[in-house]
Amino acid sequence: MVLKSFVEVRPDSHFPIQNLPFGVFKPEPNSEPRPGVAIADSVLDLSVISSAGLFDGKFLNNSDCFNQPNLNKFLELGRPAWREARSTLQKLLSADEPTLRDNEILKRKALLPMDKVQMLLPIAIGDYTDFFASMHHAKNCGLIFRGPENPINPNWFHIPIAYHGRASSIVISGTDIIRPRGQGHPTGNTPYFGPSRKLDFELEMAAVVGPGNGLGRPIDVNEAADHIFGLVLMNDWSGTTISPWIVTLDALEPFAIDAPEQNPPPLPYLTEKKSKNYDISLQVSVTPAGHQETCIVTRSNFKNLYWTITQQLAHHTINGCNLRPGDLFGTGTISGPEPESYGCLLELTWNGQKPLSLGRATRTFLEDGDEVIFTGCCKGEGYNVGFGMCSGKILPSPP
Amino acid sequence: MVLKSFVEVRPDSHFPIQNLPFGVFKPEPNSEPRPGVAIADSVLDLSVISSAGLFDGKFLNNSDCFNQPNLNKFLELGRPAWREARSTLQKLLSADEPTLRDNEILKRKALLPMDKVQMLLPIAIGDYTDFFASMHHAKNCGLIFRGPENPINPNWFHIPIAYHGRASSIVISGTDIIRPRGQGHPTGNTPYFGPSRKLDFELEMAAVVGPGNGLGRPIDVNEAADHIFGLVLMNDWSGTTISPWIVTLDALEPFAIDAPEQNPPPLPYLTEKKSKNYDISLQVSVTPAGHQETCIVTRSNFKNLYWTITQQLAHHTINGCNLRPGDLFGTGTISGPEPESYGCLLELTWNGQKPLSLGRATRTFLEDGDEVIFTGCCKGEGYNVGFGMCSGKILPSPP
Repeated sequence: MVLKSFVEVRPDSHFPIQNLPFGVFKPEPNSEPRPGVAIADSVLDLSVISSAGLFDGKFLNNSDCFNQPNLNKFLELGRPAWREARSTLQKLLSADEPTLRDNEILKRKALLPMDKVQMLLPIAIGDYTDFFASMHHAKNCGLIFRGPENPINPNWFHIPIAYHGRASSIVISGTDIIRPRGQGHPTGNTPYFGPSRKLDFELEMAAVVGPGNGLGRPIDVNEAADHIFGLVLMNDWSGTTISPWIVTLDALEPFAIDAPEQNPPPLPYLTEKKSKNYDISLQVSVTPAGHQETCIVTRSNFKNLYWTITQQLAHHTINGCNLRPGDLFGTGTISGPEPESYGCLLELTWNGQKPLSLGRATRTFLEDGDEVIFTGCCKGEGYNVGFGMCSGKILPSPP
Repeated sequence: MVLKSFVEVRPDSHFPIQNLPFGVFKPEPNSEPRPGVAIADSVLDLSVISSAGLFDGKFLNNSDCFNQPNLNKFLELGRPAWREARSTLQKLLSADEPTLRDNEILKRKALLPMDKVQMLLPIAIGDYTDFFASMHHAKNCGLIFRGPENPINPNWFHIPIAYHGRASSIVISGTDIIRPRGQGHPTGNTPYFGPSRKLDFELEMAAVVGPGNGLGRPIDVNEAADHIFGLVLMNDWSGTTISPWIVTLDALEPFAIDAPEQNPPPLPYLTEKKSKNYDISLQVSVTPAGHQETCIVTRSNFKNLYWTITQQLAHHTINGCNLRPGDLFGTGTISGPEPESYGCLLELTWNGQKPLSLGRATRTFLEDGDEVIFTGCCKGEGYNVGFGMCSGKILPSPP
């Protein structure tokens, strides 16, 4: 029997009772930020639920983790507390549970229309690492920039490659993105200074770290999942835009599938007893500047990752690096094998050689005024577990 | 006339009244962390001075910036508040000012022996960027890894190059460093897994950011100095070790000198009306494992930087990147022109080809149990402005 909520959920909603993703919001512009979960078109205010004493399990009873401006304190508590929160909330929101359903005053205080609240960054991000974990993306970049001889360096198959990104410029979905300026060097010996000429989106997802590890104490790859709270959509362009709702690994569990076979087999510290991906359909749409129409430009899937998020995490700590709750791990651009599933304009237009038709507009790279929208969704039997959207619009560089 | 304190200062002390570097400490293991300044062999507890109402100027009166576990709130206030703090403290500590000098109770509470307190990281570091700003270091690395054809890439002279480092693994002087493990690939096609075989120190300094900037709003190079609070010593090895005392740019001002001429001239956004370095003597000593003797292995100077810290900061923000108070900017290894002034073992031993004699031991790279000690000092007339030390010992990798 499908679990049902007393909150009415449209069939295409990303946020049924099976999902319950976590975020942080303000009910009013002057309110303090507080944690919430998404349910249908509403946000459930967890500070209200907590103050009403409804988190009464052994991990969350008397905890102030939902009276915080971000989720970091909750993330630090680990999977047992996350599971307790999830089961408490699923019970509280279910159709046959009267506690909240029949308490009009509490319900009015706790359940707020999502389109009336302001979503914020759900976590204080200590450090942000961006991997390069899709083989199709690595191969396409190699073909474009190095040619067909050896598109993927051999070490790519031994090691989850990553760079360390900037935490300060991570923004929440809906934030405008200013085209960056800097030095370029297209021809000759003298660099020019000016706006970026090839501004792209990158279709990614990101894992949110829960409990961290001490400096010098690596996390075993087979225990890495206990250090990951959930996933968000992520657009890695100028700065990094993430979706407001973190979908937990527990909500994603019904959509877990085997990760691709790895050949050559990874070294022992990266060898997983069970190597999992998740079947999450991803889609990118663009609304070109000056147009109303939104065009889908790519359809990919999280399952296209070669290196799993647990391998990424184990690799990140094997040298002794310490993670902290709220750290973010980007997957890198998630491209599929077909040209229609490439995860960025660099690949979709083959570095500008094949312009893309977007209704009445065409694009090689992003132009000022373009809006880019990511969505992600798992299709269950009779319900979805979705990520909502991750969007942003390009503003021109400063003069 | 030289400014004098009622606190007795040995002639070779790094911390006379002309310095007053800021740090954060705990008086007892169970105390709350609080800001302090170093004076001779003592630490002045700023939370005590603040509670006594002695910060009575217009910026710091009624501020709680010294009742914080780090300096970030003070850093955010900017140079006018920093100057007010400095002049208040110089007056309070001067030989002819009775307020603190003659108040035995307050003095006992506020002035604590430095060897009895525990120093902590003085700042919450949001993001940490490490530059590559010494031309001698860039040239030596180029010669070692690419050969004499073209040791420095031409772009190095147009752009202050940097990588984005990890904030979580920045530790305070005295913290042991565990030798990292990871994949290596010295010969053949199959990588091995094991402890790092060439562990090095890197002699650096780092700038601590004060007021930040909004996303998309670059900082002008000629205003960049107002966004830098001061400098620390930094060892960039496995993780990053910094010295506990931040010496302010105001204390360093008497040691400001012209930065080297830049050829080719930088682009307008990097062109400074006045391009400054500081004359800071730097020294690295090593105590080899199992030995008592400490040997000096290099002597360099901060003035060897090609790109100034203000150019680094302006460049970092020109693309719209936002900085936050407490962000850290490493200079990169500071090597001088002579072989005795190279800033890391890679250069000093020319990638292991010329072992270094350390008393009864020799080294190519660091061995387990080695302790590395950085010091830095400016020599004034009759006084020093120093950084104390930045030290750490190498522990073996986990089995």
